[in-house]
Amino acid sequence: MSQFDVVVIGAGPGGYVAAIRAAELGFKTACIDAGLNKKGDGPALGGTCLNVGCIPSKALLQTSENYHAAQTEFTEHGIDVQVKGFNAKKMIERKDAIVSKLTNGIGFLFKKEKVESIFGKGSLQGQVDGLWQIEVDTNGTKQLVTAKHVIVATGSLPRPLPLTEIDNVNVLDNEGALNLEAVPAKLGMIGSGVIGLEMGSVWNRLGAEVTILEAMPTFLAAADQQVAKEAFKVFTKEQDLNIHLGVTVNEIVKGDNSVTVKYTIAGEEKTETFDKLVIAIGRIPNTNGLNAEGVGLQKDERGFIVVDNECRTSLPNVWAIGDVVRGPMLAHKASAEGVAVAERIAGQKPYVDMNTIPAVMYTHPEIAWVGQTEEQLKAAGVKYKKGQSSFAANGRALGMGQAKGFVKVLADADTDRVLGVHIIGPVASELIAEAVMAMDFKASSEDITRIVHAHPTLSEAMHEAASSVK
Amino acid sequence: MSQFDVVVIGAGPGGYVAAIRAAELGFKTACIDAGLNKKGDGPALGGTCLNVGCIPSKALLQTSENYHAAQTEFTEHGIDVQVKGFNAKKMIERKDAIVSKLTNGIGFLFKKEKVESIFGKGSLQGQVDGLWQIEVDTNGTKQLVTAKHVIVATGSLPRPLPLTEIDNVNVLDNEGALNLEAVPAKLGMIGSGVIGLEMGSVWNRLGAEVTILEAMPTFLAAADQQVAKEAFKVFTKEQDLNIHLGVTVNEIVKGDNSVTVKYTIAGEEKTETFDKLVIAIGRIPNTNGLNAEGVGLQKDERGFIVVDNECRTSLPNVWAIGDVVRGPMLAHKASAEGVAVAERIAGQKPYVDMNTIPAVMYTHPEIAWVGQTEEQLKAAGVKYKKGQSSFAANGRALGMGQAKGFVKVLADADTDRVLGVHIIGPVASELIAEAVMAMDFKASSEDITRIVHAHPTLSEAMHEAASSVK
Repeated sequence: MSQFDVVVIGAGPGGYVAAIRAAELGFKTACIDAGLNKKGDGPALGGTCLNVGCIPSKALLQTSENYHAAQTEFTEHGIDVQVKGFNAKKMIERKDAIVSKLTNGIGFLFKKEKVESIFGKGSLQGQVDGLWQIEVDTNGTKQLVTAKHVIVATGSLPRPLPLTEIDNVNVLDNEGALNLEAVPAKLGMIGSGVIGLEMGSVWNRLGAEVTILEAMPTFLAAADQQVAKEAFKVFTKEQDLNIHLGVTVNEIVKGDNSVTVKYTIAGEEKTETFDKLVIAIGRIPNTNGLNAEGVGLQKDERGFIVVDNECRTSLPNVWAIGDVVRGPMLAHKASAEGVAVAERIAGQKPYVDMNTIPAVMYTHPEIAWVGQTEEQLKAAGVKYKKGQSSFAANGRALGMGQAKGFVKVLADADTDRVLGVHIIGPVASELIAEAVMAMDFKASSEDITRIVHAHPTLSEAMHEAASSVK
Repeated sequence: MSQFDVVVIGAGPGGYVAAIRAAELGFKTACIDAGLNKKGDGPALGGTCLNVGCIPSKALLQTSENYHAAQTEFTEHGIDVQVKGFNAKKMIERKDAIVSKLTNGIGFLFKKEKVESIFGKGSLQGQVDGLWQIEVDTNGTKQLVTAKHVIVATGSLPRPLPLTEIDNVNVLDNEGALNLEAVPAKLGMIGSGVIGLEMGSVWNRLGAEVTILEAMPTFLAAADQQVAKEAFKVFTKEQDLNIHLGVTVNEIVKGDNSVTVKYTIAGEEKTETFDKLVIAIGRIPNTNGLNAEGVGLQKDERGFIVVDNECRTSLPNVWAIGDVVRGPMLAHKASAEGVAVAERIAGQKPYVDMNTIPAVMYTHPEIAWVGQTEEQLKAAGVKYKKGQSSFAANGRALGMGQAKGFVKVLADADTDRVLGVHIIGPVASELIAEAVMAMDFKASSEDITRIVHAHPTLSEAMHEAASSVK
């Protein structure tokens, strides 16, 4: 029976980062993970994010943007190009190679930092003499490991839709949507969250006719609504995504090579048949096989493991981080919590500020924000000023041929402290880093104005937005 | 005779920004500029930067990257594409349209902010009763305007090479290099500074065989030498730019459709013939026609107008900013000085920190830095720590297919304060904004580590570099 100081259950961006940090801090550490590679014949570290989430979707994103640019942008540049064909299988192979490289990279880091990587499903068996007993089930072979501290980082799973079952043939989840080896003529998507919009955009750019059905009446309810409105306009009017809001899906009928969806919108019954249907209606915390109930690990009514601000669960020396606990389901939030928990176990006093965790959507243009939206500030009764700058006046954006969108800076009306930054536009995912840095230092909008931004860069739009705050 | 509170001479990124800020602050402001549009039939605001510098070069950059990507990257993505031809003229037209849009935009801003835009060449005539007399020569028609304060923002000109004369037919400066309407088979470049490398890279990607001759023995002497070495390796080994250092050019002979350069390298005489030759050996301050000598405006031995830390010249109420004064010849440095001078005239106390002005080179990969290089720290005897992270391990960079280069963070050995950040890699131009923000807030490298970076982004490399500082 192996004995560890710290055992992490789950090797996604929360768990693997926690394990490495714990090992760096001198703890004897193991990380248990049951993830399989795409072929299903061996382990794959990295969790949803690396295997069937953030990383593979960004690989497809680049392919789809290249493909689309060749057809729509190159002529203007004087480039006479003929797109003779598209091999989706090759795109998927490229994506798989990137995924393999990164998941193998974690294995390499584990070896380097002396984290013991254990393949199997971990379940809590109780605490004996201050040591947690964790059973690891590796394809039916069971072993027991012990640890003083356990970090649960079991992540999340796609939320099921009771009307149908994911088969990843014609009815797909994120995993299936990332592995289509041909472009479907008609792609249906249930859910207009990050996954729905990113995957919908990718396949739309590759030539699919995409229809997104969303239950909520509001588009991108979590985003600043000015950004959401701009996004809706660009996606529907310029990119021909069909986005229907306020939809009730009534029935899903699988055919041999198609899926028919019956739904109600504004009181009207409609029927549409798709070649493929993606279900992307959110994600639920994953505590499958953890034996949470057996050991009395407290969960809330939605299935999240209950933790305090510092990721302590209801059980002594059992911590939980990432998607399986409250807060945004974001890889970088999980990683930050993982580092912080490892440091707390070492007696340090780290702090993760939930108000300065950036959110990013890899649509085109990209969307990114940090801090409060106008809607949140209004609801909280906070008096604020705002400033905005359009990429249409930005030289770099014009040079790139991507002069769409804007940066909006929200600041406290009295103190000028930056309360939120909202971007829709080129490279928003990278531009937001400056805003996070500014907010973490409690910058005023004038501070952003005073800081020299390189010319010609997209980041000048941040400068301009801050300059116009009033 | 028109009387103003503030007259700005020059409408480049220093002058136009100064004029707008002065007007915003309530001053009656004029901006005098003699810049002509490309056709030569009307004024064009914006100076070198907008007309024949930063902006047009970034337009060509995008075209050349598209062209190159189609030929070298698309296959891997499964995109079967045939590049049937390239129309450089169309590329130039697109560039000209972007330039027009932005130069016209300045005219629009001037109207909006009530800055009087005066077309002509401004010269100082002396101070009468506390008012500066400025003669404006508009194609031979002269008028006199007066102002309490003058801001000289006359910028810079390409440094001439005594061996030859720019004709912008076969021997080109930056302006000519931005207006070639066919791709030269063999392009020679004298000078491996920003302009030489950016233009050399553009035409290289478009198919020219490019040879760069540099007098200095060190490549990119101003950059951190680890970055410079990586850049040299990528440019010469992977991109087939021929870069020769330590070159003495002895003779330049213009033919009808070619230019022959005779030079010495490592004691050996060589001769090369090019279709076009670009001279890009730096820039010199421009005080042509300003009548500096007539009014006693002090210049240094290299021709720069002498100013103090706050851009005051030797003459009362005459200020000078941008390329015509000491400091880096960068548009954003000029703009920052322009804003600061306008505010000083209004009695405010602004401050421009020369140590946190970022530098950017739009090569591929891009190069950007802020603060001190390792070489500078060593020379100053500062004890420092460093951390580095490669884009090869960055998921976003891999997805983009641009996983080259690294981020390096230098921090004080005792205090951990960030002293310099050096990037060679994708989107370095935008990533540097976070580092500038951090340095302006006097962040430690640990601060950068503590701040949550969105996943998956290139900015995570900044986080990783900071995490590894030791």
